[in-house]
Parts: sequence; C-alpha cells; structure tokens
Amino acid sequence: MSGSKYEYVKRYELPDPLMLGTYMVFRLDGHSFHRFSDVHKFTKPNDPRALELMDCAAQALMKEYGDIVLAFGESDEYSFLLRKSTSLHNRRQAKIVSTLTSLFTSNYVFHWSKFFPDVALEYPPSFDGRIVLYPSAKEIRDYFAWRQTDTHINNLYNTTFWALVQQGGQTTTEAHATLRGTVSKDKNEILFSRFGINYSTIPPRYRKGSVIVREKTEPDTDVHTNEQQSTQESGLTQTRSGDQKELKNPPTKLEILHCDIIKDDFWNEYPKILEE
Amino acid sequence: MSGSKYEYVKRYELPDPLMLGTYMVFRLDGHSFHRFSDVHKFTKPNDPRALELMDCAAQALMKEYGDIVLAFGESDEYSFLLRKSTSLHNRRQAKIVSTLTSLFTSNYVFHWSKFFPDVALEYPPSFDGRIVLYPSAKEIRDYFAWRQTDTHINNLYNTTFWALVQQGGQTTTEAHATLRGTVSKDKNEILFSRFGINYSTIPPRYRKGSVIVREKTEPDTDVHTNEQQSTQESGLTQTRSGDQKELKNPPTKLEILHCDIIKDDFWNEYPKILEE
Amino acid sequence: MSGSKYEYVKRYELPDPLMLGTYMVFRLDGHSFHRFSDVHKFTKPNDPRALELMDCAAQALMKEYGDIVLAFGESDEYSFLLRKSTSLHNRRQAKIVSTLTSLFTSNYVFHWSKFFPDVALEYPPSFDGRIVLYPSAKEIRDYFAWRQTDTHINNLYNTTFWALVQQGGQTTTEAHATLRGTVSKDKNEILFSRFGINYSTIPPRYRKGSVIVREKTEPDTDVHTNEQQSTQESGLTQTRSGDQKELKNPPTKLEILHCDIIKDDFWNEYPKILEE
Amino acid sequence: MSGSKYEYVKRYELPDPLMLGTYMVFRLDGHSFHRFSDVHKFTKPNDPRALELMDCAAQALMKEYGDIVLAFGESDEYSFLLRKSTSLHNRRQAKIVSTLTSLFTSNYVFHWSKFFPDVALEYPPSFDGRIVLYPSAKEIRDYFAWRQTDTHINNLYNTTFWALVQQGGQTTTEAHATLRGTVSKDKNEILFSRFGINYSTIPPRYRKGSVIVREKTEPDTDVHTNEQQSTQESGLTQTRSGDQKELKNPPTKLEILHCDIIKDDFWNEYPKILEE
Repeated sequence: MSGSKYEYVKRYELPDPLMLGTYMVFRLDGHSFHRFSDVHKFTKPNDPRALELMDCAAQALMKEYGDIVLAFGESDEYSFLLRKSTSLHNRRQAKIVSTLTSLFTSNYVFHWSKFFPDVALEYPPSFDGRIVLYPSAKEIRDYFAWRQTDTHINNLYNTTFWALVQQGGQTTTEAHATLRGTVSKDKNEILFSRFGINYSTIPPRYRKGSVIVREKTEPDTDVHTNEQQSTQESGLTQTRSGDQKELKNPPTKLEILHCDIIKDDFWNEYPKILEE
Repeated sequence: MSGSKYEYVKRYELPDPLMLGTYMVFRLDGHSFHRFSDVHKFTKPNDPRALELMDCAAQALMKEYGDIVLAFGESDEYSFLLRKSTSLHNRRQAKIVSTLTSLFTSNYVFHWSKFFPDVALEYPPSFDGRIVLYPSAKEIRDYFAWRQTDTHINNLYNTTFWALVQQGGQTTTEAHATLRGTVSKDKNEILFSRFGINYSTIPPRYRKGSVIVREKTEPDTDVHTNEQQSTQESGLTQTRSGDQKELKNPPTKLEILHCDIIKDDFWNEYPKILEE
Repeated sequence: MSGSKYEYVKRYELPDPLMLGTYMVFRLDGHSFHRFSDVHKFTKPNDPRALELMDCAAQALMKEYGDIVLAFGESDEYSFLLRKSTSLHNRRQAKIVSTLTSLFTSNYVFHWSKFFPDVALEYPPSFDGRIVLYPSAKEIRDYFAWRQTDTHINNLYNTTFWALVQQGGQTTTEAHATLRGTVSKDKNEILFSRFGINYSTIPPRYRKGSVIVREKTEPDTDVHTNEQQSTQESGLTQTRSGDQKELKNPPTKLEILHCDIIKDDFWNEYPKILEE
Repeated sequence: MSGSKYEYVKRYELPDPLMLGTYMVFRLDGHSFHRFSDVHKFTKPNDPRALELMDCAAQALMKEYGDIVLAFGESDEYSFLLRKSTSLHNRRQAKIVSTLTSLFTSNYVFHWSKFFPDVALEYPPSFDGRIVLYPSAKEIRDYFAWRQTDTHINNLYNTTFWALVQQGGQTTTEAHATLRGTVSKDKNEILFSRFGINYSTIPPRYRKGSVIVREKTEPDTDVHTNEQQSTQESGLTQTRSGDQKELKNPPTKLEILHCDIIKDDFWNEYPKILEE
C-alpha cells in the first residue's frame, strides 16, 4: 500500500510568499472578547490582569521569534512588527499567520492562572490574525500611530462612560446618550468636573497601551530590576528553536513601555527598530 | 486628536478571498512536536492520551463551526473538510486559517489536564495551519485516502521500530538499520515472528487514525451511550456563536470513528459529506 | 562587469500559479471600442466585418493553443475555455493572460485590412484580458449561458434602437426614451409593427454570437467546403509552437457556429468540451 | 429571458490588487522572437529597424499612460516603471498587465511597415508581460542596472560571435566554441585584434539599450528638432483617455537616450523618476 497514487493532491497547495523587502505587521484580535470579558468579569473600563496577560503572551512571541522588533497592544489586540528582511518560514503567509496566532493563543491559556489566580477559565478563548505589508518606515510609523490614537480614543470614551455608570449612577443607555456628539475636551471636562478625575493621571498603560521593545543585553549589565516588566530570554526557551537560532539571536531584554509612539522621541531612542 | 490622518494604512491590507464553489481542507500540524512529545514523555509508538486530546480539540472545532463536515486526525496533525458552499468569514483565507488554528490550540491547552491529569504542561505548544482548495469530490476522497495511507505507513513503521527497541533491546540506530529497505510485508513478519504481534489486532485508532463525522440528532433518539466517544452540542456552547447560528445548526452528534475511509463503504454510509 | 550583484531583484517576482484541476475561462474585452467603432465608422447595430475580424483573431488563438476547447464572441469581447487539465505556461496567470491578449491583439491588427479593405486603421486598438477559474462543468455551462443571454439582450436593444433612429427618424435621445422600461416582447412588437422586422429572421450571428468549436479532422474527410467558416491548421502555423506541440495537437478543424449554447443540445453534440 | 440566473458566475472572479505604495515594473518580452527574427531576416547582431520599432511601441505606451515615468529596452524586451502612487486601473494586476501588453503589441504591428517598408510582416508576433513590485528606490535602481548589465553582456557576446561568423568565416558552432570560457576582456581583444573593431565605438544604442524619459514641455520651448528621437503627445492622442487625463497629464516630451543608467549621473539628472 503506497501513498503515491494519492500524493498528487499535495500539488493543489498554492505558494503564498509575502513580497521581499517589505515590513510585515502581524496583528491579532480577540474573537468575541466582549462575551469573554463578561463571562470572566473583567473590570471596567480596564482590567489590569487581562492586559498583563496579553503583554505576557506578546512577550512570549518576541522571545521565540527574534525577527519581531516591536509590539504594541491595547485591549484584546496586539500588533507585531517583523524586520523587513525577515525570512521567517520563508515568508509564507499562512505559515506565519497560523504559527504566531497559535503560539500567542497557547500562551494566553497557559498563563491565564498566573494573572487570574482566582478566576477559572470558563472556556477556551481564540484570536484571529492577519499580516499587512508596508514598503517603508513612514507607513510603519503611521501604522503604530494609528493604533495608539485608537487606544486613546477608546480609552477616553470608556473611562468616561464607566465613570458615568459606576460613579454617576447612569444606565449604560443613559451614559451612551450623554456622550453622543462629545469631543475629547468634553469628555475630559465631564471626568474632571463631575468625578474629579484628571484623565492625564490615569495609568499610562490604559492611556498609551503597551509597547514592547527589544534591547541587546550588555554582558555586564544583565540585571533585572523589575521582574514583572522585563524578561530575559533564557537558554532553555531559546533552545526551543534550535541551535542555529541561538547563535543568531543573542539574549535580548524585552522592555514593556507605556510611552508615546506617535512623536519622534520614541523612534529616535530606538533607531534599530526601523533600521536594516 | 483624530485617527483619520493615519487611517490610510488600513488600505494596505489586501483581500484574500478563497475561490467560490470549491471544497476547503484545513490542516493543522503540531509545531516541533518531536520535542514536545519527548518533554512530556508521550508513550511510544502511540500515546492514547495525546491522541484523545487531539480528538477533543478537533471536536471543539466541529462544534463551533457547523460547516466542517468531516475531520481526520493522526499523530500531531488534523485535517478538516469544509462544505464547498461555506461562507465562513466570507471565505477570507487569513481569517479562517488563524481563527481555526487558534481555537484548536486553545482547546488543546485548555483540556490538557483532563487527558494528562498527572503530567504538568511544561510550556505552551503551538500548531501551524493551512488551507488547500479542491474542485471536486474525487480530490477530497483522494486527499483523505492520502492521509490515511500515511497513517498506516507511519504507524506500521513506528510500531515495528519501537518493538525492536522496547522488546528487542535494539538501540534506535540499530532499529532504523533493521528496517532499512523493508516493505510492509517484512514489517508485519518481524512483528509477528519476533514479538508475537499480529499487526491487524492493534487498536484501530492507531492503525486508522480518527475520523469525526456529524449526524443530525433525531429528536427522539437523542441518547448518548458513549460519553467519551460522542458529544452533543449543548445549548451553552452554541450560544457562543450567537442566535443566528443556533438556528442554522441544529444539534448534531459528533461521532469519532476509527474506520477505513479509503474504500467506498464509508462514503456511501455518509453521503452528505460530499453532497451539496 | 557581472550582473550578479543586481540579479537579486529577480527574486521579487512572485509566483502566480492558477489552481489545478479547474476550468479556466479567459475573456478579452475591447478597450474604448465605443470610440474605436465611431472612428472607423462601424455599421450599426452590427458591423459584420468587425465581427468576422474578431472571429478570425479568436480562431488564431485556438490554432495556436490546442488547450482552448471552446470560444464564444459577441461585439468586442471573446471568451475562451481552456481544458481543466491544461498545463499551458505552467498555469502561470500573468503569462497566460498577457500572451493570449497579445496574440489576439496582434491578429486583430494584422488581419484588419482583410476585413476592412477600404478602411484605414487610424490607430492601434487594444484589449484587456482576465482569467476566471471554475470548479465544474455546471459553472462553465452557466458562464457561456450568461454571455449568450447578454448577447441577446444587447442585440435586441441595439437592433430596435437603431431601427428607431435609422428608419424611424428618431434622435438617439428619443430612441432611448422610447425604449425605457420596455421588455423583450415590447421591442419585438416595435420592430415588427413599425418596421416590419421579424427579429427571429435577423442573422443568427447577431442574435446568438459566434461559437468556435474544434473537431478532430478525420484523415479521409479532410475537405473544407466553406473556407470562410472553417480553417484547418496548416503545418506552417503549427510549427510555430515547436515539434512537440505538433505531435500533441493533431490537425483539427475549427468550426464557427451561431447556435444556441444555453440549452443541452449543443453540449450533447460536443461532449468533449467538458469531458476530461 | 433574463441574465440574472447565470450572473452568479461573475462572483468567481477574484480581486487582484497590487500592493499600495510600491513601485511597479512592467516588463514585456517577445514570444519566440528567435524564429520571428529569422523569418523576417533581422540583421545580426543588431537590427536597427527592429530596435526602433520596439522604441516606437514603447513610446506609444508612455504617451497613453502618464504614470509610466521611465522605460528601458534592449533586444525584444522592454521594461516600464510606473510611479509608486499610480492608481492605474485601480492597481488591478491582470487589467494592467493585459492592457499594456496589448497596446504595445498593437503598436508593434501597426507601425511595422514604417520601420520595415520593404519587409512584409509574415505572421502576427506576440509578447508576454509581467509586473514585479519593488518597495524602494534602491531596488528600482538595481533593477534597471540589472537589465543594462544584461544588455552589455549579451551585446558583447553577440557582436563578437557574429564577427567570427560574418567576418571570420567560422560556422556558428565554431564561433560558440571560440567564445566558450571567455571573459569580457577576451572578447574585446578578439574584436580588436582579429577584426579591428573597437567595441566602445559601436553605437550606444546597441551597447546601452534605449532609455525613454519624460520631461514636461516648457510652454515657450515646444520645438522638436529631432522628429525621430522625440515626440510630443498631441491633443488627439491624449483625448483617447478622456478629458480628465488631459488635465492631469500636461504635454510631455519623450526623449530616447542611449546612456548609462547604472551610475548616479542619470538619476541625478532626472530626479523626478524616483521622487514622489
């Protein structure tokens, strides 16, 4: 019994290489996370445990794949920038999209209990992923500016909305009505005058999202002062991708920041992200 | 602060619809499962717990996606057939590939402890996924015949190999050498003459892989006699995808079989799989 | 001076294979033929010279490419069906689309003076081409039915429109107004009652379009009774594609028909078109 | 009789947009031009009439499509650079490839007798076309350097080869043998010592190929001194693409150059080619 007479079906698989010399952005989004956050009673407007779990899964991807040079997350989504010269999985689209989505998902479920020690995971969550290519550094800057702008808009709305509901006693319908037609300034004013909240003092994690960057560890400065916020890739983890990779990816420290990535400062401080 | 000046980056996302009127086969493969099975001490040549966990995750996909009409699994891979008229995620390739891979992975990790109650999951496993389109029923028959033929070839080799090692005291190098150039008949002979093993009496799960089919539950015959082998979609699970789906996908029973899918009998018994 | 340091740019070319086992329909459309027909004073509603020139160019494609098994043309468009097992240009999309469009265009210009002996070609016309894949014979039947239905609708409209203008003395604006909201029966009635035209007696070329089929020439019946309507591939023309092709494509006669291709009769008479 | 029941077949056509923000290179190659040049007795190693006909067809493309900012031709091939911001045919791949290939072919046949007044066109020639995308100016520079390097290598070989045959009395087999293993220096030496030919004095058209650039015509300097080498787009030609285009594409003069495009000089002189 030989497989040869059926093997022709393999030839139906079509190649799907991603264009060379272009930046890849891989973005993940939670699938039906509105329901997922309700079932697991995420705090509103932001649940720090849920956000930290997302960051943890994102870090795992960056540990595994040295060609990811930047990540940005907010709410139930995360974007990853791959170097434009990456040859990860020979730039095959389905392979990259499926593998990264799978590894992120796996980490999310695996590390759940670390961030939600008192909350049982009721059912397995899932994510969808996509890749978008960009030809130059300008579009990459604008892509991440787009996501951080979105973070700001959503968070200001949600913060005000939940203040009206939780502290102002409005129903959700009333709160939506209160906010209809308002601009940023109005929402800041509502927060301050009615609830004494100065929006700019809200934790930067909520206002700016999470930014993960990679820095080469100096041999003599390899000290972690903040275990929760930075992780060094251990030899063990690296071994996972084989010896060859270990040589190519020297240990790097992953830093989680909650800073502005729209203005030039960030990009000037981390010039390697866009450099080749 | 408006997102509008950056939103143009969205237009770089390219459409990736899969051709209409064609059968979709979605296949998952474990990523670096050689190492994963070593670390978690899977029994050789087959670990029933690992295979049942794969089946469990596959069933979860079929519960969630009514357009999957057949699944076939062996070792660390699983193939799923979607109806050729499916409009799942508007037939967008990256969306389908990433979502299905994510949900399978999530179930694998989520249900791990149910199948490996005494084995801690050491690190999060991952899978890759791909979609191949086929124009007609003939190629679908041949695709599944190809996978089941592969199951047979691999399992006969592995069964003989591990008998030589575990019972025959050969090193793995010696066992590979013993098997070099042998055909099926030779391996059957080695198993029988040296180890008293009649290959055809080995559990069909190992020889044939797992076949999952869906049958509409008759209103009055809705009785589960074998809890482990068949599951009825509960209202709770269905709700997950919303009311509309609940109406379209009446409760179906998922049956796990370990039967031949190369010859006509199976396809004659389940004519709906290839029908539209 | 070696080209090697620049040759890397070749690797940016992406593969574009068309799915195996599917029917290919290649369709050409005249680019800006409204203007082209005005400049060259095509007779209205149909110019037999222009239609015969299209047929001539279409025949040239079928002579050159033995895998084209059917063609259908109307007005300034032509559709070609390629066998689903064709390996023409390794099924590379851009190669097939560009080559077929080029050869058709070349023939159109080359043979212009044969069909328009008294009309100078004022400027070079052009066509665009596209390929659409279909999984089964049913869609192919329906594709050609769609085009022939379109031929009927357009020709009935145009015939009535130009009768109103040329014989009825209406301006084009008035003629459009007269026809607004009319159905087929109304147009037939206008033609008959006002102009004594029985639409069904109009030449079938205009009502049905042109259908080109291929039949293997019987060695002893190789006689052409109608030079204008059928052509046998000469050795000279065949040589063009090399000896190998000559062996694979025995001389076939190309027949131009103006028959119904919506009903079963045509397909029953030419069963090889959809067979593999 | 309505077309609606068949119109569903239109939905099988898949979108094929080319990534935004990238340079497009469209390249044409003659199909079986070895035979074509034999049948039409092109002079060896270069036929100036054939090359000028190619240039003429290339100019026609640039007149029609204002988004082509550079063209380079050699032998039976031509490459065209489209602005990276072009929205020609909504960047649909098959539409662009087929239309440009068709218009080039049409011009080639249409203008044949102007360049070959004494040679009848024996049969219609054809071309294939393809599009390759490049993300940045660097790859565009290297693409054109690759093509011009190729021109040099081929022309030096052919010039020496035909000198050995036409002047040296060698058979073609002998000439190939003579050149086997030679480098550029050797071929220059053969040309000079045996045939008194200084390769660098051969017409630049043959050594460098043809470069077509576009320059905006100054209102008061609109004088053509060299009819054969430069052409101004007439209002008539422009009208072809409609009024809107006429406004967007002010008259430009197309210059045919035979200069080096590998070094910086050319690109410094025509900075607009790579600018957006």
